[in-house]
Amino acid sequence: MNQSLNDKKYAPIGVFDSGVGGLTVAREIMRQLSLERIVYFGDTARVPYGSKSKETILRYSRQIIHFLESKGVKAIVVACNTASAYALEELRPEMRIPIIGVVKPGAKVAAQVTRNGKIGVIGTEGTIASQIYTEMIQRHNPHAIVVGKACPLFVPLVEEGWLKDPITIEVAKRYLASFQETGIDTLILGCTHYPLLRSVVRDIMGEGVELVNPAYETAQGLKRLLEECGIANDGAQPEGAPMYQFYVSDAAEKFKSFANSILPCEIKEAQLIQIEE
Amino acid sequence: MNQSLNDKKYAPIGVFDSGVGGLTVAREIMRQLSLERIVYFGDTARVPYGSKSKETILRYSRQIIHFLESKGVKAIVVACNTASAYALEELRPEMRIPIIGVVKPGAKVAAQVTRNGKIGVIGTEGTIASQIYTEMIQRHNPHAIVVGKACPLFVPLVEEGWLKDPITIEVAKRYLASFQETGIDTLILGCTHYPLLRSVVRDIMGEGVELVNPAYETAQGLKRLLEECGIANDGAQPEGAPMYQFYVSDAAEKFKSFANSILPCEIKEAQLIQIEE
Repeated sequence: MNQSLNDKKYAPIGVFDSGVGGLTVAREIMRQLSLERIVYFGDTARVPYGSKSKETILRYSRQIIHFLESKGVKAIVVACNTASAYALEELRPEMRIPIIGVVKPGAKVAAQVTRNGKIGVIGTEGTIASQIYTEMIQRHNPHAIVVGKACPLFVPLVEEGWLKDPITIEVAKRYLASFQETGIDTLILGCTHYPLLRSVVRDIMGEGVELVNPAYETAQGLKRLLEECGIANDGAQPEGAPMYQFYVSDAAEKFKSFANSILPCEIKEAQLIQIEE
Repeated sequence: MNQSLNDKKYAPIGVFDSGVGGLTVAREIMRQLSLERIVYFGDTARVPYGSKSKETILRYSRQIIHFLESKGVKAIVVACNTASAYALEELRPEMRIPIIGVVKPGAKVAAQVTRNGKIGVIGTEGTIASQIYTEMIQRHNPHAIVVGKACPLFVPLVEEGWLKDPITIEVAKRYLASFQETGIDTLILGCTHYPLLRSVVRDIMGEGVELVNPAYETAQGLKRLLEECGIANDGAQPEGAPMYQFYVSDAAEKFKSFANSILPCEIKEAQLIQIEE
């Protein structure tokens, strides 16, 4: 192998999530940073993260980061809102490579696009309880009013495949009703599963409310980060290096079929590993 | 302490589940075996089990059984249908104390109460895919026809607290529609959360269909088992021994408040432990 191809810039990006949701982030990275290789880990044995405590999410995230580092990644994307909310700030000082989450890029854009300073956030119980979006949005716009709403049934509805279903619409109406009197003009889809419910949310909220998809903004943020660190891939690839690799802690076949239904490329294998060890 | 009070019969019963669902089983044990002490473990850090693979459930169950054995229990109740389906038969030969699950007692009663031999089962994806209820029912009634249906949204709906909600009724109608042409006269509530949806299921299925609650039957089975092994508590209690103890792997406060909403007694504490170690 050519010496220069051992450069850090040819190493893959590590991406992790509690399960399949982070694939919406991987998909954006594939679209926007098509030269970058990816090692994805989905913690399907311990999914979901949204209802679990900060301590538990921190422990799980540490295990996963060690695993991704062992695969030689050059940067890590926390493609899970709950892990970004609970673990990112605490983990960053422990790391030797850059790490970014999905919360900050989404919060930043929301703070920029709002016209009236009133922003809604939907997410898991963990993400909403952490108030992380409020904190991040107010870093950019201290006067912003942020209204959060946990939507715990959205993830199981997406995983049931009921994407444009009357029941899903009813559940969404119930959850989103809490924004009615708030006057928000911007709504963050603060969970990686939620972009798959985008059209349902769009129909209920109407054209007057801008929907922010943190997956898209995260890929943009990653692009900037790689360029700033001088580790963006310039197009060369180490011989025989796989473009995309997928690892899970459980139910590899089910993961593979979900992945193939939403990714722009066909994945051949999701490899099962024991993350607890 | 009196020597005789060190007898095995004064030891507690170990009960475990993936989370709060098994509390419906603990509740039946409290009601029917009021002299027995209980050590309950809820695996709230890794809940739910219903969508995970056999290998993973087996590994988790082993860790929990070791923990309960370390607490000196005299018998173990697997108060989780998925773990009963996937792990029980494989774990029994490894154990030195009696262990029973929720599947066999429920299956046995269903096989007895059906008049036309057509039995429905609702449960998690794991329980239904395992075909364990079919197998167990046919041991008692080889000609029984068993129709299974996975209802993955029922657990999150219960945990959302939407017990008699129009949305829950719609979801239940959708799931239970698959029994319409089958002519079943008996339906097993094959997940420990489902007794909390009993009245919704009753309204949709009508009076002609007998509902079987495995939690009730399991407590009955446990009573017989303790008597047969000569280890049923005769009413004496070791001094200072707590009647009921609760351990969880995450979110102890949330567990405690759910427990207090469904148990006949007030629990003061749910203790957090790390089950992976």
